[in-house]
Amino acid sequence: MEAYKHKIQYYETDKMGVTHHSNYIRWMEEARVYLLDDLGFSYKKLEESGIISPVTNVECKFVHSTTFDELISIKVYVEEVKSVKIKIAYVMTNEEGKIVCKGKSEHCFLDVNGGFINISKKMPDFYEVLLKNQSEETQG
Amino acid sequence: MEAYKHKIQYYETDKMGVTHHSNYIRWMEEARVYLLDDLGFSYKKLEESGIISPVTNVECKFVHSTTFDELISIKVYVEEVKSVKIKIAYVMTNEEGKIVCKGKSEHCFLDVNGGFINISKKMPDFYEVLLKNQSEETQG
Amino acid sequence: MEAYKHKIQYYETDKMGVTHHSNYIRWMEEARVYLLDDLGFSYKKLEESGIISPVTNVECKFVHSTTFDELISIKVYVEEVKSVKIKIAYVMTNEEGKIVCKGKSEHCFLDVNGGFINISKKMPDFYEVLLKNQSEETQG
Amino acid sequence: MEAYKHKIQYYETDKMGVTHHSNYIRWMEEARVYLLDDLGFSYKKLEESGIISPVTNVECKFVHSTTFDELISIKVYVEEVKSVKIKIAYVMTNEEGKIVCKGKSEHCFLDVNGGFINISKKMPDFYEVLLKNQSEETQG
Repeated sequence: MEAYKHKIQYYETDKMGVTHHSNYIRWMEEARVYLLDDLGFSYKKLEESGIISPVTNVECKFVHSTTFDELISIKVYVEEVKSVKIKIAYVMTNEEGKIVCKGKSEHCFLDVNGGFINISKKMPDFYEVLLKNQSEETQG
Repeated sequence: MEAYKHKIQYYETDKMGVTHHSNYIRWMEEARVYLLDDLGFSYKKLEESGIISPVTNVECKFVHSTTFDELISIKVYVEEVKSVKIKIAYVMTNEEGKIVCKGKSEHCFLDVNGGFINISKKMPDFYEVLLKNQSEETQG
Repeated sequence: MEAYKHKIQYYETDKMGVTHHSNYIRWMEEARVYLLDDLGFSYKKLEESGIISPVTNVECKFVHSTTFDELISIKVYVEEVKSVKIKIAYVMTNEEGKIVCKGKSEHCFLDVNGGFINISKKMPDFYEVLLKNQSEETQG
Repeated sequence: MEAYKHKIQYYETDKMGVTHHSNYIRWMEEARVYLLDDLGFSYKKLEESGIISPVTNVECKFVHSTTFDELISIKVYVEEVKSVKIKIAYVMTNEEGKIVCKGKSEHCFLDVNGGFINISKKMPDFYEVLLKNQSEETQG
């Protein structure tokens, strides 16, 4: 999968002159949506079929600051797939190829009433695709 | 009604060193929610009773810049009330009493299916309260 | 100039199920930055040469709601150019070509000390490019 | 120290009907600023004296969803203080006293040129206050 690209917007900076750290969490979501599109199971379609996948855990290590007008490349890795949850890792680099941020997120699957969904039973084809795309190495 | 207070957060600033202009639009929403609470018809209750009130128009005149840690006072005025729409005006001042921003917003009332609601018929008590609180002067 | 494209992100929606109105103000900034890039005077370069251009006025008419995963096309028009300020208009359409939002913004030019800059004297080449790209019609 | 209070805004929700997870990261910043104010070393004053304190690491465990109009209480704990970095923990509860989110952040101290600052030497009084307020227990 190609890296997702995010152009840093002026409104994403803060008075330190750099990108406000909360935005990296949002870019992780952008990259995750892009991954799902790429796997053929868009988040929009998942929601339309009555499945939501809220974030249960998020972490982010800020390695190098970024700012307005930079183009960030975000590689997304399916790090762990279980029937009821999934772990995703993100590695973000700037135009010089320097790592600027490393992130992880965990998600569960819920139905419209908030009940947990076993994705391997409810959507076996989606589960298979996730498994097949699981990374062999974990991202630091 | 007392002015609504908003403490400016670090994440609301941008690399110019001042508050990013898009946040004033959000503070208008905060102040509007506060006004409705004060009038006894909280926005939460309106939504629970099946009424939403989307913004159809917004304008904002930025008079003086603001930044992190300032406390902004926002006065809210019901400028015009009709059966199907409402106009609200906002005057924001800093701690020195200087006007920093003047805004206006217009809203309609919709039911859960997106159909227009005539608020004077559907919620006459709310309509009366809005009318009674209508400002006598318009805010520039 | 080609329209600027914005893919609506999940974090830009609100509990009404649609895009929160404050984001359109941010997309106007994205489209403006894109316009300046296209004209050969990127906002980044303007800032590096000591010129900032804060928003002094903004208005937005919300015509049709939008939501997650839609691709919005934003046409940007230089509506009025004066030595000390500029007016820009924006017309946003969804994938069906339906107008979803019309916006306007006004900007002045300031130096690093916050003093007004006469752009026709300070940056005549930029001023000429803006004038040459001025739209013949105003956008409603 | 009293808990910091945050009223959830409409613009902080997303189309799932709940608070978008990126906002908790922002509330952690709000609570941290509040803590520094309470300790007598406001972040504004730190910046004015030439010290910035960027986030180098952040993590967040989402325990229970929240939504518009809820009042969240955020307890902030100084978890670890070293000469060059600090760890802060956050426990957020809703109005029923239920834990909704647990977060951690790590920060370094930099001067205006981006060089690392040894806070125990540069600002011994601030360092002492941080040490004195260090929590005895870590927050899971």
